[in-house]
Amino acid sequence: REHLLMMCMVAKRQEEEILSLRAELDTMTGNTDGTLLWKIDNYSSLFAKAKKETTELCSKPFFTSKYGYKLGLTAFLNGNGSGEGTHFSLYIKILPGEYDTLLQWPFTHPVEFTLLDQTDDAKKRRHIKESFTADASWKNFHRPSKQNITLGYGYPTLISHEELNLRNYIRDDTIFIKVKVDTSKIVGI
Amino acid sequence: REHLLMMCMVAKRQEEEILSLRAELDTMTGNTDGTLLWKIDNYSSLFAKAKKETTELCSKPFFTSKYGYKLGLTAFLNGNGSGEGTHFSLYIKILPGEYDTLLQWPFTHPVEFTLLDQTDDAKKRRHIKESFTADASWKNFHRPSKQNITLGYGYPTLISHEELNLRNYIRDDTIFIKVKVDTSKIVGI
Amino acid sequence: REHLLMMCMVAKRQEEEILSLRAELDTMTGNTDGTLLWKIDNYSSLFAKAKKETTELCSKPFFTSKYGYKLGLTAFLNGNGSGEGTHFSLYIKILPGEYDTLLQWPFTHPVEFTLLDQTDDAKKRRHIKESFTADASWKNFHRPSKQNITLGYGYPTLISHEELNLRNYIRDDTIFIKVKVDTSKIVGI
Repeated sequence: REHLLMMCMVAKRQEEEILSLRAELDTMTGNTDGTLLWKIDNYSSLFAKAKKETTELCSKPFFTSKYGYKLGLTAFLNGNGSGEGTHFSLYIKILPGEYDTLLQWPFTHPVEFTLLDQTDDAKKRRHIKESFTADASWKNFHRPSKQNITLGYGYPTLISHEELNLRNYIRDDTIFIKVKVDTSKIVGI
Repeated sequence: REHLLMMCMVAKRQEEEILSLRAELDTMTGNTDGTLLWKIDNYSSLFAKAKKETTELCSKPFFTSKYGYKLGLTAFLNGNGSGEGTHFSLYIKILPGEYDTLLQWPFTHPVEFTLLDQTDDAKKRRHIKESFTADASWKNFHRPSKQNITLGYGYPTLISHEELNLRNYIRDDTIFIKVKVDTSKIVGI
Repeated sequence: REHLLMMCMVAKRQEEEILSLRAELDTMTGNTDGTLLWKIDNYSSLFAKAKKETTELCSKPFFTSKYGYKLGLTAFLNGNGSGEGTHFSLYIKILPGEYDTLLQWPFTHPVEFTLLDQTDDAKKRRHIKESFTADASWKNFHRPSKQNITLGYGYPTLISHEELNLRNYIRDDTIFIKVKVDTSKIVGI
């Protein structure tokens, strides 16, 4: 009886350590150059799920430099807002980061989204691109806090479901999205 | 009895999570510049084992860029093929990677192997170097699949056991192998 | 009884694997450019603890290149040596690394410490900077071994406790220390 109790405590402590390792690993994407290539596997089953219930998919975080802004992408496969039920929606979000005190706010750097066309012949690929530069007045790009999760900013109607099924935007049940932040004007720490 | 069963299930779930963390960590070598420095520790015991039974040592994977080709080295301390029993054999292998759909195939980039001479005085080191450029016709460099593991390509007779024991190729029971892929002609995603 | 024993063995093996994952993760800081930004959270409680008993805080290790020197910072919030009880003391230490055999010894590269002023307006920040170049005769920068842990080198009186509480060196109970090694003369492997 006592031994069993002890075992339970060991398992619980191990569980906590595993969770903390997982969280750290997810942060350590190595993506500290302001770009991220987001691979969404199992598109069809995720899309089916999104049609039943609105689901926000979240990418791993990425950073504009080693100690830069922490950012993430979110996608709604069945759309949200003006794209609900008809489009693929894509947003970028400022996440609260470890070095926010040292950074300049608001975030006002150019962002470019690309939905990749996975055609074999690189010359025949026709990627979908959208880009914007955050304006200092937009709330989405002010310094985030853990209490106030900032809303994402992006494209509720990035691409319609019909278009998405043309060409090779979906291949092997997989979508690739690239995001690139222009870091040329970000002052390093 | 029931509690014990529950504990078993907890342990099993934890085991799976640990394995997945390990796999991710092994992938996150940070080696995304097309080079790898492979440190083989405990040479003498590994060599003794290889003499009893052919063993293929595998390096951690490395990448030609953040989203580039996934590659690995394999070594046979007691040789294989034409070097069996007399030489140290070294090969490079294309591994199935997450971004293979987006890359150009076959892989045809120059590869250079270096077996490091660990002499203290850097000027007196005489490294062993070999290099080749993959030809488009070689099967080893076509797109790999999880079903079809590609064979490695390299040098069955990189260095004889006698030569290997000269100079400081082995030091503190350790060998260092460097591999460098010329990434200058690889088109980024 | 037997099952319980088996469970204990499983838990023990898992524990070991978790510890090894943790150690690897701590090493994989991604800091392989000779710089580190060290964030010390919970300053006030750590300072209170240091006043009761001398405590050496250690940063995560960082590296001068992917296969370069392994370095770490240590800090004494309540000072040590000539700064004991009055100053914040900061040191750098050479740690035994995986590639030490291949590097040139002693380490003689310029090192710069910065204690960051976290004032919002980047123009009004007045960081505290100190720098030195290791001399070949200093024992602290000779090749370390696991038996002989090298002593750190640095500033026992980097900043007094009074000064530290001025401006924004401490903000949100957090201190930021930056260290930069001039890697321009380090010969790569």
